[in-house]
Amino acid sequence: MQDFDKVYNEFYNSIQNKLFEIANNTNPKSLRDPFIYLIENGGKRLRSITTMLAAGAVGGNPYDALECGVSLEILHNFTLVHDDIMDSAPLRRGKETVHIKWNIPTGILVGDIMIGYACQLVPKDDKIVNRLKLQELFMESLIVVCEGQALDMDYNVRRDIIADNYLDMIGKKTANLIRTSILMGAYCGNATPEQISLLEEFSFNLGLAFQIQDDYLDLTSSESGKVIGQDLIEGKKTYMIIRAKDLAQTPNDKELMEMFYKNNGATEDQVNDILEMLERLNIFKEAQELFNNYYELAENALNKLQQNDYTLHLKKILDQTKNRKH
Amino acid sequence: MQDFDKVYNEFYNSIQNKLFEIANNTNPKSLRDPFIYLIENGGKRLRSITTMLAAGAVGGNPYDALECGVSLEILHNFTLVHDDIMDSAPLRRGKETVHIKWNIPTGILVGDIMIGYACQLVPKDDKIVNRLKLQELFMESLIVVCEGQALDMDYNVRRDIIADNYLDMIGKKTANLIRTSILMGAYCGNATPEQISLLEEFSFNLGLAFQIQDDYLDLTSSESGKVIGQDLIEGKKTYMIIRAKDLAQTPNDKELMEMFYKNNGATEDQVNDILEMLERLNIFKEAQELFNNYYELAENALNKLQQNDYTLHLKKILDQTKNRKH
Repeated sequence: MQDFDKVYNEFYNSIQNKLFEIANNTNPKSLRDPFIYLIENGGKRLRSITTMLAAGAVGGNPYDALECGVSLEILHNFTLVHDDIMDSAPLRRGKETVHIKWNIPTGILVGDIMIGYACQLVPKDDKIVNRLKLQELFMESLIVVCEGQALDMDYNVRRDIIADNYLDMIGKKTANLIRTSILMGAYCGNATPEQISLLEEFSFNLGLAFQIQDDYLDLTSSESGKVIGQDLIEGKKTYMIIRAKDLAQTPNDKELMEMFYKNNGATEDQVNDILEMLERLNIFKEAQELFNNYYELAENALNKLQQNDYTLHLKKILDQTKNRKH
Repeated sequence: MQDFDKVYNEFYNSIQNKLFEIANNTNPKSLRDPFIYLIENGGKRLRSITTMLAAGAVGGNPYDALECGVSLEILHNFTLVHDDIMDSAPLRRGKETVHIKWNIPTGILVGDIMIGYACQLVPKDDKIVNRLKLQELFMESLIVVCEGQALDMDYNVRRDIIADNYLDMIGKKTANLIRTSILMGAYCGNATPEQISLLEEFSFNLGLAFQIQDDYLDLTSSESGKVIGQDLIEGKKTYMIIRAKDLAQTPNDKELMEMFYKNNGATEDQVNDILEMLERLNIFKEAQELFNNYYELAENALNKLQQNDYTLHLKKILDQTKNRKH
């Protein structure tokens, strides 16, 4: 079996080359510069990598899915640049966001043009039997990711969000794009309907597991210098917060949750109290059980595929959600 | 020959029905409401109408191009809602813009999801021989319209814009989408390469003529209650302003242009002085000659197509650019 890191690095380099080729050819300069800046600001390119792995997992050539993968990476970066404007986020991966370094109009417009470049990359040639499906998946994914972001913004001002609402939102905002990445890769590899169905189950649950773990780590891990509880300060109504509101019984707990909802977030002083409450009410444990549930659903689906190097690499990606520390 | 108004109204009603169908099915409500608002705020739907007329002009069924037409109308409205944010415009057709009535995040997101809906509408069925071309034209058009808006914003802060730069910008920002509307319609009607080539020439020149006339009317017509010279107050460097800067000789004229460029626009007091200068230096006349040039190029191309009801209706659309008063 080929070493995962070797495969990852080879795929990564091809993806980076293609991304820079597109960004470098963007006109005018006022859009080219922020596009290049976005790409230089990094990212693990996991969406493109999984697209390529999925093509290999169904018996195809991973490089037949390179353009689809890059397309989805550009789509993902479009969501980041627009979401950062909507969320008034000053930083992304420790660097100024595009709308701060330039201005809001530039952020809007570079995002818009990126949608065009992303869609242009979706292959149209006859080699891919279900090429119409690629277009369909791509556009559906753009629409669904917008729906997810709209729900996320709606939830900021709503007090009646239940756990299912939250799972619906992260399904649309996060898992959707991971699902699309893997399905487009599978179609590029001319997957059978059964392979598509298993990879759909794998990818959507992978996406949910990833986001649940992301939320969990935000409240529990200080590795790589991150501040614990940033999500609490920003007022994100994650699964854990929703459960805390459900389960709060004592006057103190109720008051703490009441303040969180009223002020759309916690003060730095309140962060430790909320963390203590989540621990005491077994909500961290519950979140880990939820994660494990999605992890297992993803794992079971993947195990049903005929094994090859690429299915093993996909398993590695799934395991990274479990083993990551930040 | 079928009456133009009758054809227009029939097409218009089909377009409106489809637009409302899509807007009404948008989720969540926080995106549906602004989408419906945008559509209710009107517009002559000229892009969709020309798409349908183009299909008929090449001998096809105009209704085979309905979805393409609606697609381009949604794309056009996406540009309006995002441009209004970028330009900080408070009003559109006399009503509050989306980002004012709701907020900037809503304006960004409704625009984003509209791109998805627009692209989904582009037909993929075998009936259209060159259906791959439809996708290609649509995406190219999205990219080019973003390039045009970027140039427009760049020009706001540049002092060295020449007439060719301006024509390049309106080519990308305005004529491009009219060209795409007509070409997509022609492909939906399975046009011959010669018909495509003539309609391309027709449509691009129609688009340029339309924009030049739009700029001219802004400075010369007060019909329908519009304030004369709004473009001057907003600092738009139209063809006429660029020519005024080129031709200014007297100290007064030079000073007036210097102030315009320095302050990115004219005060209400300066508007009349600039209008007087444009008249005196024959710049209005020059703009009309430029308009006539594009009008004739469009007319000549159209005349080379085999005549039918729909080519005559397209001629009517071209003539409206000449006869409009506001």
